[in-house]
Amino acid sequence: MVSTVVYEILQLSGILAFAISGALVGVRRRLDILGVVVVGSFTGVGGGIVRDMLLGVHPPVSFTHWPNLAVALVGSLAVFFVHPGITRIRHFEVVFDAFGLGLFSANGAATALAAGQTPLTAILVGTITAIGGGVIRDVLVNTVPGVLTRELYAVSALVGAGLAVAIMALGGSDGLASLVGGAAAIVLRLTSVARGWHLPKPRIGREPGSAES
Amino acid sequence: MVSTVVYEILQLSGILAFAISGALVGVRRRLDILGVVVVGSFTGVGGGIVRDMLLGVHPPVSFTHWPNLAVALVGSLAVFFVHPGITRIRHFEVVFDAFGLGLFSANGAATALAAGQTPLTAILVGTITAIGGGVIRDVLVNTVPGVLTRELYAVSALVGAGLAVAIMALGGSDGLASLVGGAAAIVLRLTSVARGWHLPKPRIGREPGSAES
Amino acid sequence: MVSTVVYEILQLSGILAFAISGALVGVRRRLDILGVVVVGSFTGVGGGIVRDMLLGVHPPVSFTHWPNLAVALVGSLAVFFVHPGITRIRHFEVVFDAFGLGLFSANGAATALAAGQTPLTAILVGTITAIGGGVIRDVLVNTVPGVLTRELYAVSALVGAGLAVAIMALGGSDGLASLVGGAAAIVLRLTSVARGWHLPKPRIGREPGSAES
Repeated sequence: MVSTVVYEILQLSGILAFAISGALVGVRRRLDILGVVVVGSFTGVGGGIVRDMLLGVHPPVSFTHWPNLAVALVGSLAVFFVHPGITRIRHFEVVFDAFGLGLFSANGAATALAAGQTPLTAILVGTITAIGGGVIRDVLVNTVPGVLTRELYAVSALVGAGLAVAIMALGGSDGLASLVGGAAAIVLRLTSVARGWHLPKPRIGREPGSAES
Repeated sequence: MVSTVVYEILQLSGILAFAISGALVGVRRRLDILGVVVVGSFTGVGGGIVRDMLLGVHPPVSFTHWPNLAVALVGSLAVFFVHPGITRIRHFEVVFDAFGLGLFSANGAATALAAGQTPLTAILVGTITAIGGGVIRDVLVNTVPGVLTRELYAVSALVGAGLAVAIMALGGSDGLASLVGGAAAIVLRLTSVARGWHLPKPRIGREPGSAES
Repeated sequence: MVSTVVYEILQLSGILAFAISGALVGVRRRLDILGVVVVGSFTGVGGGIVRDMLLGVHPPVSFTHWPNLAVALVGSLAVFFVHPGITRIRHFEVVFDAFGLGLFSANGAATALAAGQTPLTAILVGTITAIGGGVIRDVLVNTVPGVLTRELYAVSALVGAGLAVAIMALGGSDGLASLVGGAAAIVLRLTSVARGWHLPKPRIGREPGSAES
């Protein structure tokens, strides 16, 4: 298949992006070198492991295909030694997380569809793969996962996965679907951060300061 | 099988109850509309996904059978727009959580037994299915899961699952087992809350205020 | 196979050690008897369940082989009634956790290799099995998992798993590999605690007190 190389590059890029985001969180939390590598690696390969467990791929690809783990380890180690100062580190976390989110959502959906899953299942698998690594990272460092609190986070993953499935339904290749869907998700997520787009919060009665709609 | 419709109704009712409980927690934590929908949906379908991964059903039913996710989404959205005020919201959380717990524990055990698992495995699968959604909800919003701290929580799930298995062992249908076991679990859980039944805590030496037995 | 009995003893010993460590944490957190039993049992059998889900063993062995759960329950209950005072309880937690870590890492790797997995996969499976129970325990009680913060924690698991795989590659039995690898992991982990061995932390700019290398 002509897109095997594209697939591999997108997979490893997504793993690298998430591993960097996880390692940056580890550095900010002042974990030691091993803690940084563990949280970075889990974040990098975690979404794919969840995907493989959902689809019944045993053992997960990251346990048998060494480049996945190698990329996650190298990315995490690199962050330990070279990283921005404390005042800018959160900015980098968000950017690399967005790249991981976009790459995994579209690519995960395209892969599931190409493997014969229905469009609904493919979109769900892509979305779960994309948010899985970040949820693991945030639960490990004991914070509420960004998917519950960040601007258009799950929406961006859904858009990326849905666009990828739509492109393939219209006859596009899975490589094209992964690239276009992924780019759309990344742009949507980063734009929502830059513009501070927030969705409405619930009205709750009898609490001071609950006036927002 | 005559009980397929009963099974489907019980499944969707359990998903709806857990989704509502999760969305209520999201509202109380003041998540935005998407955060409320994500935590509600994960809580609604999470237990079943864990069950399917344990039993080797790939992909999980909620990824292929759209009514599951639809019910979870609609329930979560409804809670976002219509919910009790802050002073009563915890009360509703507990009630819907109890219904999810009861519906999933007995129904999960009955389904596993009907699928050929042993009674022990069926009881464990039912219990894990019942507490899985709530554990996911509580871990996501960063609190200690209720199964560790709430009144007779795991006991209620075990009773519901065990009663369902016992009814089937005595020749009852899986629909009857799900209904009776589920009702017993719900009544036990809500009674323990209403009466404030607590189990003994450990004695710990050398700590002020550790006098309770 | 001659080492079946050895395997069973090592498995149950690992489950018992992790269940005791989990129950001790539950006692320290002042959970009631059921909470202590739930967190102890999940910690005891959790790593093995993760391993089985990764390898595609459905349902997990602990759901079908009753001694696993029985040992976890008995160990947790025993801790509820007999445990050290608050000033020494953390010490016992660390020791039992180290035994669980060592027993599971080497034994998990040896089992995976004997089942036909590659050395890389076997080492990863052993490591994940060993740290899985502790991660579940720490996430449940809402603290950052020890694998991210404790002295040589993941390194000890990796050494145990790697040594077990190396011994089998050199012709040793899986029983010998489990014993030697497990002992090495336990000794390494406990020595690192006793000596206070810590790995370097990241340098972070513009933060007071960030001088350590």
